[in-house]
Amino acid sequence: MTKGDDTRTTILDHATRKAARVGLTGLTIGALAKELKMSKSGLYSHFRSKEALQVQIIEHGAEHFTDLVIRPALKFPRGEPRLRALVENWLNWLDHHRSQCGCLFIAAASELDDRPGPARDRLVDQQRDLIDFVTSITRVAVDEGHFRADLDATQFAHECYGIVLAFHHSARLMRDPKALERTRTAFERLLVSARTPDPR
Amino acid sequence: MTKGDDTRTTILDHATRKAARVGLTGLTIGALAKELKMSKSGLYSHFRSKEALQVQIIEHGAEHFTDLVIRPALKFPRGEPRLRALVENWLNWLDHHRSQCGCLFIAAASELDDRPGPARDRLVDQQRDLIDFVTSITRVAVDEGHFRADLDATQFAHECYGIVLAFHHSARLMRDPKALERTRTAFERLLVSARTPDPR
Repeated sequence: MTKGDDTRTTILDHATRKAARVGLTGLTIGALAKELKMSKSGLYSHFRSKEALQVQIIEHGAEHFTDLVIRPALKFPRGEPRLRALVENWLNWLDHHRSQCGCLFIAAASELDDRPGPARDRLVDQQRDLIDFVTSITRVAVDEGHFRADLDATQFAHECYGIVLAFHHSARLMRDPKALERTRTAFERLLVSARTPDPR
Repeated sequence: MTKGDDTRTTILDHATRKAARVGLTGLTIGALAKELKMSKSGLYSHFRSKEALQVQIIEHGAEHFTDLVIRPALKFPRGEPRLRALVENWLNWLDHHRSQCGCLFIAAASELDDRPGPARDRLVDQQRDLIDFVTSITRVAVDEGHFRADLDATQFAHECYGIVLAFHHSARLMRDPKALERTRTAFERLLVSARTPDPR
């Protein structure tokens, strides 16, 4: 890494944590420069615009997510074990102090849903990749015989996402001490339904 | 209604719609005054502080939610029919153009989860009331024999909330044309599991 890359990473680490707290639209290059004791023109030389900064924060957060959630899950056997590992990592990511940008994507989803632009586009791409990844692990679980042959893997991924969102809501906003337990129960129910023949 | 109440309602209608778009913390009394062609001191006389305004926006949104989601559901027979009506109204609320403050609570949940204060407290109360309401309708559905006797109604309400959050995410951010269909499928699966004996 060059010194420029190093500085860029320092700025992005700080900006990503801050965005998770105050929102992407709440960031200003001026305030970031002040907090990082850098010149405003120095920050502009790295990002050129607030919009470019927002896009790079989403990408930076997505790299973290890959490192902490996706990559470690890939070490688990294909199919259901990998899916379980993924969901555990995901819940840890939302819960854990280390990943202070834990709720960046969920916060950005509410913030950007009706604000067209490159940041929204990048977020949608990142979320689509994630949902596609869950869908593909689920399809493998069908191929491996862990789940029933006619399972709708896209529907499964959609419901899985809802379980994660409910965890985020109950743990972070509601401070429900049973948030994790309720989430695990919901996920086990989803797994059971993925094995049991469809009642329709 | 006095003229003062009328003005207060006009301000709150506008501020609630705006908060759903730019976030509660993105509001300023100065900008609202400008948009409503009122004096800043006029607005202060109604709300005294930005914090008081945020609390009143949440309360104003909660009244709308009660009028459009809760109250019409109460006209349906107790138990499962009422639960179905509630979820349909809730999805309409999130989807519908009329309720432009549709995502106010979900947006505020991400925005306020790590910002202690009266607005967060009011939001948590509102969300707790809502979850308790779903739980209580579910308990009645057990009493009416629509659902199995040992159903955990709180768990049911938690999962139901996750289904609604996944709808919000897939419809508003992802613009998934199948969002509603996926949501209905997920909800039907939850209803089936509420009837079927617990497999554990």
